[in-house]
Amino acid sequence: MKVTKFGGSSCAEASQFTKVKAIIEADPERKIVVVSAPGKRFDADHKVTDMLYLCHQFMGIGIGGDEVFDSICERFLSIQNDLDLDIDLTEELESTRSILQAGASVDYTASRGEYFSAKLMAAYLGYQFIDAADIIRFDTKNQYDEIKTKELIREKIAEGNYVVPGFYGSKENGEIVTFPRGGSDITGSILASALGVDEYENWTDVSGFLAADPRIVDNPKPLRIVTYEELRELSYMGANVLQEESILPARKRNIPIHILNTNSPSDPGTLILPRAKRQEEDFVVTGIAGLKDFMVIDVEKYHMTEDLSFFRKLFSVFEANRIPIHHMPSSIDRVSIIVKEENMKGLEKKILEEIDIYCSPDMIEITGGLSLLAVVGQNMALRSGVAGRVFGTLANADVNIRMISQGSSELNIIVGVANEDFEKSIRAIYNEFFEED
Amino acid sequence: MKVTKFGGSSCAEASQFTKVKAIIEADPERKIVVVSAPGKRFDADHKVTDMLYLCHQFMGIGIGGDEVFDSICERFLSIQNDLDLDIDLTEELESTRSILQAGASVDYTASRGEYFSAKLMAAYLGYQFIDAADIIRFDTKNQYDEIKTKELIREKIAEGNYVVPGFYGSKENGEIVTFPRGGSDITGSILASALGVDEYENWTDVSGFLAADPRIVDNPKPLRIVTYEELRELSYMGANVLQEESILPARKRNIPIHILNTNSPSDPGTLILPRAKRQEEDFVVTGIAGLKDFMVIDVEKYHMTEDLSFFRKLFSVFEANRIPIHHMPSSIDRVSIIVKEENMKGLEKKILEEIDIYCSPDMIEITGGLSLLAVVGQNMALRSGVAGRVFGTLANADVNIRMISQGSSELNIIVGVANEDFEKSIRAIYNEFFEED
Repeated sequence: MKVTKFGGSSCAEASQFTKVKAIIEADPERKIVVVSAPGKRFDADHKVTDMLYLCHQFMGIGIGGDEVFDSICERFLSIQNDLDLDIDLTEELESTRSILQAGASVDYTASRGEYFSAKLMAAYLGYQFIDAADIIRFDTKNQYDEIKTKELIREKIAEGNYVVPGFYGSKENGEIVTFPRGGSDITGSILASALGVDEYENWTDVSGFLAADPRIVDNPKPLRIVTYEELRELSYMGANVLQEESILPARKRNIPIHILNTNSPSDPGTLILPRAKRQEEDFVVTGIAGLKDFMVIDVEKYHMTEDLSFFRKLFSVFEANRIPIHHMPSSIDRVSIIVKEENMKGLEKKILEEIDIYCSPDMIEITGGLSLLAVVGQNMALRSGVAGRVFGTLANADVNIRMISQGSSELNIIVGVANEDFEKSIRAIYNEFFEED
Repeated sequence: MKVTKFGGSSCAEASQFTKVKAIIEADPERKIVVVSAPGKRFDADHKVTDMLYLCHQFMGIGIGGDEVFDSICERFLSIQNDLDLDIDLTEELESTRSILQAGASVDYTASRGEYFSAKLMAAYLGYQFIDAADIIRFDTKNQYDEIKTKELIREKIAEGNYVVPGFYGSKENGEIVTFPRGGSDITGSILASALGVDEYENWTDVSGFLAADPRIVDNPKPLRIVTYEELRELSYMGANVLQEESILPARKRNIPIHILNTNSPSDPGTLILPRAKRQEEDFVVTGIAGLKDFMVIDVEKYHMTEDLSFFRKLFSVFEANRIPIHHMPSSIDRVSIIVKEENMKGLEKKILEEIDIYCSPDMIEITGGLSLLAVVGQNMALRSGVAGRVFGTLANADVNIRMISQGSSELNIIVGVANEDFEKSIRAIYNEFFEED
């Protein structure tokens, strides 16, 4: 059995619904379908969810809400009519309008996009509709209740085919709550996990993830296979991938996630696997990502290693100032604390003073303008020489290396370069590992 | 003006004294001479200082002390007679014997080697003898008193040429105190610093430091120039160099230290310079050193960077168990704590439990058998590509890299490899950087 989730563009209009149906019918394992609210049909179009938020705002101040809601109805009814469906949502849409006018919560309002999208999809596919409010549970503090949700899903979803609206659930008292991040992806992930399915298919408008940022590298290759861990590292470093929160439930149960393209369903897409299921692949390096604008606080202290309290004191200064530490490569008697520039804003002087007071260093130095690159690949450990190629390539590109950190898992190498060398470095490493043939 | 210090082998016998005289006479700047006690003349010989410690022990239990002291007298008197000196130490040696028999302190006893060595050298060179007890001051807690010592040196040492015994000084009350580490080297360093000389010459029985451990690399090249910082890194990693304590006073005043060979005085030796005085040299890499038997504690925690207290808590566990942390390279969500295996002995289970309790990690893993290599070179920052060559070389030697740490000063790269790859790695890197021609 597979859970298949279709994003906003896959549900944007009737012609997209047709593609979804073809995909569902192509594989009888696709028994559970999660849908988003209709997305944009063209660049200047509005997403239904955005219109619902607008509606809530307008109705709150009593102006223009009705017109926006008319447009929303039009979106759903045109799909219904274009597909010549057996159901008519007109009445339910109108009663929803009354509820919104009476002052519904923002979560309830926003959730209606997925709700009606799922109603239409269920009718079109001939699948059963199950309201997410009946199976996704939040507690009294609006926190997602994993245990109760699992119970409800296993109780309500039996043999058969179902369409479930993504993005929301409800409290015990029926009040609708939306997920703060991850939208419908997380609903699919939760269902996949609770049902222990073989695969969670996430249908989007791209054919999977890319080995590098297409704004930096021309036509980067797609990733065929990536592990959860690799994905986490790539996404941490700014690669545009799934929200981490939406991966977590599936990851916990080691369920593979397959990113696929509704508009090009025969493309292989990207398969996200648990570490153990990853086989040795052709690519030594899975992907390259990076982030700009880090800052280095270099602290030198003679015999720092022997001063047992030194690191605890140093890190306490950053903790007290609520500054996350990203890396801390060290030489002998010298440690480089790597933080984001944005987190240091206005605090530089204070941090320096506090390090001076608590750690009595011989020298402190702050340098900004650092970019971090993550060269990520689960199989790097199996091949010696990746580090040599990475640094040789950067040298040939005349890039000076400002820091290196590689922990004992050879899953990635973190390299620090100057901001102005960022794009050049990514391109050079990409070419070295992906353009050899 | 130069302070010149001669080690034990340079003062071992009359023929060595002759070499010292030739060296002193070759440069009129060599006005201050610091001497050690006579060292070994041949492999099976005893150092005078060792014999003095033995003497103290024997006299303490009342057996055999006199015979040992006879041998000591014989060492000094043979130098005196072979060189046909104007002085006769017989009487002073005999009164010293009485003092020792009456129960002199171990520090006083041990200091007599340098004392008589300096007496002989002063007579031979025609320099003034100054007792270290009159210029090197310790406080009532036996701690070296830098300020008082500087005053005394500037007060007692005027224009002229002097020989000073190394290794000891005295308290205000005249009680002799020896330096716990660094021997005569530290006396020379203190004099050089207090007098602000141009150079501190340290004459030994080797022609300077080597670029790698000669037990691992055949005939490693000598280092011509090295900075204090490079030396610190090489010595931290086990390279056999000067005691750090003995460098510190000269380093504080940025006084160059020249390591030279009494037995081959025309060899260039190794010049230790402050960072600023180091010019770009032919060698990109100054030296390679390393240590075996480190242990890695890998800690994985999802979103560890965002958990502001995580690192402080983690390091507190090691602090509370008095385990120095040497490096802490990190990936994303994973940090590798590098410690010495000897420091973890018997504590592994406790450390794991405490990390578990205080840091709630997703995973902890301990791996032993790690060696650390330090590839050191002040000028690495000026040349791109050193990292590429280091890692390319290790890959060609089939060495897997278990960790990398390079802070923002490109003074060194720390590389972790398996213990069994240690010697192979050092040899490969040495050959890459020193055997190209």
